[in-house]
Amino acid sequence: MAPPWVKSLKPSGPQGSELLAQERAQSNIPVEKLSEFLFTREVLARQDKILNTLKADKVFDKSQNYFDGREGRFQTALARQKRLRQLAVRHQWTKEEYMMASELISEPGPYGLHVGMFLITLRDQGTPEQHELFLKKAENYEIIGCYAQTELGHGSNVRGLETTATWNSDDKTFTLHSPHLTASKWWIGSLGRTANYAVVMAQLMIDGKSYGPHPFVVHIRDFKTHEPLENIHVGDIGPKFGYNTMDNGFLLLNHVKVPHVNMLAKFSSVDPKTNKYGKPASASLVYGTLTWVRSTIVLQSGGVLARGVTIATRYAAVRRQFQDRDAKEDIGENQVLNYTMVQVRLLPLLAATFALHFTGRGMMDLYQENQKKMAGNVGKVASTGRGPSPEELFPSTDLLADLHATSCGLKALASSTAAEGLEVCRRACGGHGYSSFSGIGSWYADYLPTTTWEGDNYMLTQQVARYLLKSARAVLNGNPSDNDTTRIFRSFLSRRDMGAAFDVLGRDEDIVAAFAWRTSFLTFEALKHRDEEKNSWNSLLVDFWRLSTAHSQYLIVKNFYEALRSKSVEQELDAETVALMHKLFRLYALHTLEREASEFFSSSAVTVRQIQLARTKAVMKLLEEIRPHAVRLVDAWHFPDWQLDSSIGRYDGKVYEDLFHRASELNPLNALTIDPYPESVVLVKKDEREKFNSKL
Amino acid sequence: MAPPWVKSLKPSGPQGSELLAQERAQSNIPVEKLSEFLFTREVLARQDKILNTLKADKVFDKSQNYFDGREGRFQTALARQKRLRQLAVRHQWTKEEYMMASELISEPGPYGLHVGMFLITLRDQGTPEQHELFLKKAENYEIIGCYAQTELGHGSNVRGLETTATWNSDDKTFTLHSPHLTASKWWIGSLGRTANYAVVMAQLMIDGKSYGPHPFVVHIRDFKTHEPLENIHVGDIGPKFGYNTMDNGFLLLNHVKVPHVNMLAKFSSVDPKTNKYGKPASASLVYGTLTWVRSTIVLQSGGVLARGVTIATRYAAVRRQFQDRDAKEDIGENQVLNYTMVQVRLLPLLAATFALHFTGRGMMDLYQENQKKMAGNVGKVASTGRGPSPEELFPSTDLLADLHATSCGLKALASSTAAEGLEVCRRACGGHGYSSFSGIGSWYADYLPTTTWEGDNYMLTQQVARYLLKSARAVLNGNPSDNDTTRIFRSFLSRRDMGAAFDVLGRDEDIVAAFAWRTSFLTFEALKHRDEEKNSWNSLLVDFWRLSTAHSQYLIVKNFYEALRSKSVEQELDAETVALMHKLFRLYALHTLEREASEFFSSSAVTVRQIQLARTKAVMKLLEEIRPHAVRLVDAWHFPDWQLDSSIGRYDGKVYEDLFHRASELNPLNALTIDPYPESVVLVKKDEREKFNSKL
Repeated sequence: MAPPWVKSLKPSGPQGSELLAQERAQSNIPVEKLSEFLFTREVLARQDKILNTLKADKVFDKSQNYFDGREGRFQTALARQKRLRQLAVRHQWTKEEYMMASELISEPGPYGLHVGMFLITLRDQGTPEQHELFLKKAENYEIIGCYAQTELGHGSNVRGLETTATWNSDDKTFTLHSPHLTASKWWIGSLGRTANYAVVMAQLMIDGKSYGPHPFVVHIRDFKTHEPLENIHVGDIGPKFGYNTMDNGFLLLNHVKVPHVNMLAKFSSVDPKTNKYGKPASASLVYGTLTWVRSTIVLQSGGVLARGVTIATRYAAVRRQFQDRDAKEDIGENQVLNYTMVQVRLLPLLAATFALHFTGRGMMDLYQENQKKMAGNVGKVASTGRGPSPEELFPSTDLLADLHATSCGLKALASSTAAEGLEVCRRACGGHGYSSFSGIGSWYADYLPTTTWEGDNYMLTQQVARYLLKSARAVLNGNPSDNDTTRIFRSFLSRRDMGAAFDVLGRDEDIVAAFAWRTSFLTFEALKHRDEEKNSWNSLLVDFWRLSTAHSQYLIVKNFYEALRSKSVEQELDAETVALMHKLFRLYALHTLEREASEFFSSSAVTVRQIQLARTKAVMKLLEEIRPHAVRLVDAWHFPDWQLDSSIGRYDGKVYEDLFHRASELNPLNALTIDPYPESVVLVKKDEREKFNSKL
Repeated sequence: MAPPWVKSLKPSGPQGSELLAQERAQSNIPVEKLSEFLFTREVLARQDKILNTLKADKVFDKSQNYFDGREGRFQTALARQKRLRQLAVRHQWTKEEYMMASELISEPGPYGLHVGMFLITLRDQGTPEQHELFLKKAENYEIIGCYAQTELGHGSNVRGLETTATWNSDDKTFTLHSPHLTASKWWIGSLGRTANYAVVMAQLMIDGKSYGPHPFVVHIRDFKTHEPLENIHVGDIGPKFGYNTMDNGFLLLNHVKVPHVNMLAKFSSVDPKTNKYGKPASASLVYGTLTWVRSTIVLQSGGVLARGVTIATRYAAVRRQFQDRDAKEDIGENQVLNYTMVQVRLLPLLAATFALHFTGRGMMDLYQENQKKMAGNVGKVASTGRGPSPEELFPSTDLLADLHATSCGLKALASSTAAEGLEVCRRACGGHGYSSFSGIGSWYADYLPTTTWEGDNYMLTQQVARYLLKSARAVLNGNPSDNDTTRIFRSFLSRRDMGAAFDVLGRDEDIVAAFAWRTSFLTFEALKHRDEEKNSWNSLLVDFWRLSTAHSQYLIVKNFYEALRSKSVEQELDAETVALMHKLFRLYALHTLEREASEFFSSSAVTVRQIQLARTKAVMKLLEEIRPHAVRLVDAWHFPDWQLDSSIGRYDGKVYEDLFHRASELNPLNALTIDPYPESVVLVKKDEREKFNSKL
């Protein structure tokens, strides 16, 4: 639509492409090597392959994503999910390949909960008979399902769920029912428009007695018409701050009967002959799954944040505003990335992306180690012909408890860091950060629920505190488990009276030790408040939250430090890159230390003078040293432009051309010519007039 | 669409309405009195009157606001702006009444910049001849305009603008031109689709020499067809994170000629006879306007934040999750507002709403005081037949400089506090905070640009620091102005060596003094870095930002404190309410002090022990004391439900009914029945099929 004279215009120089080329020329960091170290060569090859497949298919064309409204976006997302399934079948994709495709598309889709929760729940909690009946069809997409737990009136507190499943001993069925409006299932992904089946969590009632929440398979929509079945009211819960490509739904059940076989019975069941309830095999199993989900969130948080940091860092290298105030002569405007006020916002977040990535990897390793031991034990007991006991499944319950608590605290800290960090990145982009074309806003909005789901970030901190208090009591009572938590507690107690003298500015291991000291200090303070002073649990929630945050910061610092000391670092990276990674470690740690200064003072982990030096000298110096490598470091995160879908974060720096192209050529609002005068009530364009008049 | 059995369902008890009634019964705060104190009886009556007018008109019906896409929202917003103008004419609305209507509608509208900037710029910067030519038509909405300053490549740095206006001495015209793509005007409100005129800021060029940016009136769209005129490329810049009811636009000019009279010439002009440039009368005038705009942002920030706090507080009183962990027997689930972890997030923000409100009022008073003195002087010089000089306009340049710096720092702090506070409120609402129906998300998204426009919040802090350093130098040199800033500096210097011993836990005036001390300490530290150690300006930006934040926090604490000591408080409020307001003051101040603990330590304003006590004792006790009054306090902010448009923040507490109603009855997505199977590429509903297939 632009007239010809517009086409000849270029941005004023220097061009974005020149500036980014200059950035990449001033650093020797081997980007490809670092990418391989972060993701492995195999994963990068997979990314290439899947990206080419997706780009070739016009259903995945993203050019209208930022313009479409709710209904348009949902329909497009559904079309993409269907095509994705078709491609997965045609190309025999592995699970990893399917996941990679989803990551590149980067939008929640209407099959999301079918794949992510429905299939898994059927598989993990169903009996062989139930697998035959439900799972096979579900894997074949004849049944499309969701996982209906949260209700309008209850989220975090699962025990408070109101939906009931009453056992009818006469005809051996369950009656599922929503006794109140607040019993309506709510927020259920894929339920709003897509699913024809649901796993419904409901309070099992036998003979007037409640046995707590259990999973029931419920058919909710007709296979042919896709209309809701009788006595079922189901629909989409409406638009949200983000996540609008997903049809989160509601579900009310009016005395709906399902057969006995529809209660998922691997771990607990009702005996249809005796009408008696059989107890769950192991509560730990559930912890295992949750721990895995939370570890995944930690691992992903690095990459989530890295998208924002990549966009903001590249744009800050292209964007120029003002001359340096101390410049003696006219040297042109300064790249925004040269200002320390921009560096201090972006570079610690850049460091955090690596810190979170390594921490996530560390947790996954621990988890898999545990799984292996477990599998070994299962093999051993298999010959006995009985199922494994919880102790056999989890050879070290200490390890499991530690992993569980760790995953709670880290999930909370990592997802908050990523979400809040993305907003910092968006704001660091000035006005253009606010444009949808920046690619940060929608990504942030879609990510935000992660701070609430799989355990609200504030709620989770109580579980961490409970575990730390328990460990501290065990240490005081002389019967602690042998793990990292108890080790740092014992070390703290042994030196408590002498105090600490950590050289946080000189030695990296002292940084880790200072973080451990602070965690220990806060734990024993909280223990005193609870056990000696007998303060109420409620009055200590704020202390617990601080404690959990401190503990998780310690874990991140420790994981980052240990990752850099691993053998693979020396083998895969050159000395210069390793040295730079150490600087990123120090930046992350000292910047955190400085922001949380008061806890480090009051615990005597460091002195006031050290904090001042960390802030005014160490951090500022690290910013200066890392600055020249910033663009190459974000390049190593290896996001294809197609994935970022950002005008200002483009690899080639053609920021202004792309912003202009999208506004001038792709924006459908510009097809609308209006009548601007207040007396008129019409638009000029005839086909819009009717729609418009109806508003008045 | 809900079946009959759904209609009989109610939320499980206790009902939200009962819980809010209980909240209101447990406090004696006279809500209506407090509202009157905050807003005056006159304003509340105006609110009532305008609200009734708007509610009666179906164009203002909000029920589809959260569902409509970009184009729908824009069209509705335009229809509303037209009707608003019609109503204003019909009912002879005052400016205040028009503003009240806009506030109640709560969405940016396509006439926004016509009213807010175009008219004002013509009025303030035009000559009588130009008023006749442009302003009259604009006031009559024959001309609809905007203010085009920001460019694709330049926001904050106005001197860097690329658009040129070249004086043609031969035919006495200016040629406006965009030499580069980055010269395109960008982000210009009301320009995208609505305006037919623009005030364009362009570099004035006479005879090859640049005279800096000046305002030019440019006709851009045809009066009848509303199509762009020749050599003008104009349109909407596309969707944004929020603010999508506004058509922010771009504008490229290809050698467009305008007559001499189109340069707004009240303060500077080109003499068409001599071809010489006449200098601006007073740069201070511009400062005056900016100061006023920023003071308005400070005043509004309290109310902006109060919307989120109102919604979150009411919902936290209705929402119940978990039993109290220390409860000995089953007492039902606890209101979320009873948890200290929720209180510590919401109640300091509640305190901040009042702190910001009183600070904004204090600034407006100062500004108006200055204006009055100015008007007095203008009257005196009017008889002389010449225009007033800057000194006569601003009798105290000290006051103006102080007010200007104050407004910069407070604008930054207040808008950041409001924006970030809204997100805290949203997250405190758990899952439902994420629903559009919470009313917080869209409000937050629409407010966010305030942190960037009228001076980026980080950029502004440099101006504050520059002023504080200048004042400190004046104090050291013995020739300071007499104002509050120099007073606190002198007091600091006189006691610097002795140190401070402020009783922040015992005496309110000592809290104010501790904040003043910290500001002074940071100022003289920064001065040392700059003047003695000769550090570069760039290396000090982070220190300057901290300094500005500290100074602004001091000002807020001081303004809050002084507002509570004013006579009107005693006259208009009862003793109990006054005591509660003092608690809110202490909560705001001590919570801030505790979060910024390290600066208070290192400046020796307080001891480590005091900080610990502030956190563990004072703040926790204040939360407990304020908690019972929380709902009445937010009620005093007096937001009609129609304005909040929030399911979870309803005055009557019918949270779940409203969420359900909107999802089940108003949500257009539920009219769409899909085919869920991956092999199919069609939707079930015929009229949707074609649209859908075209995606594949």
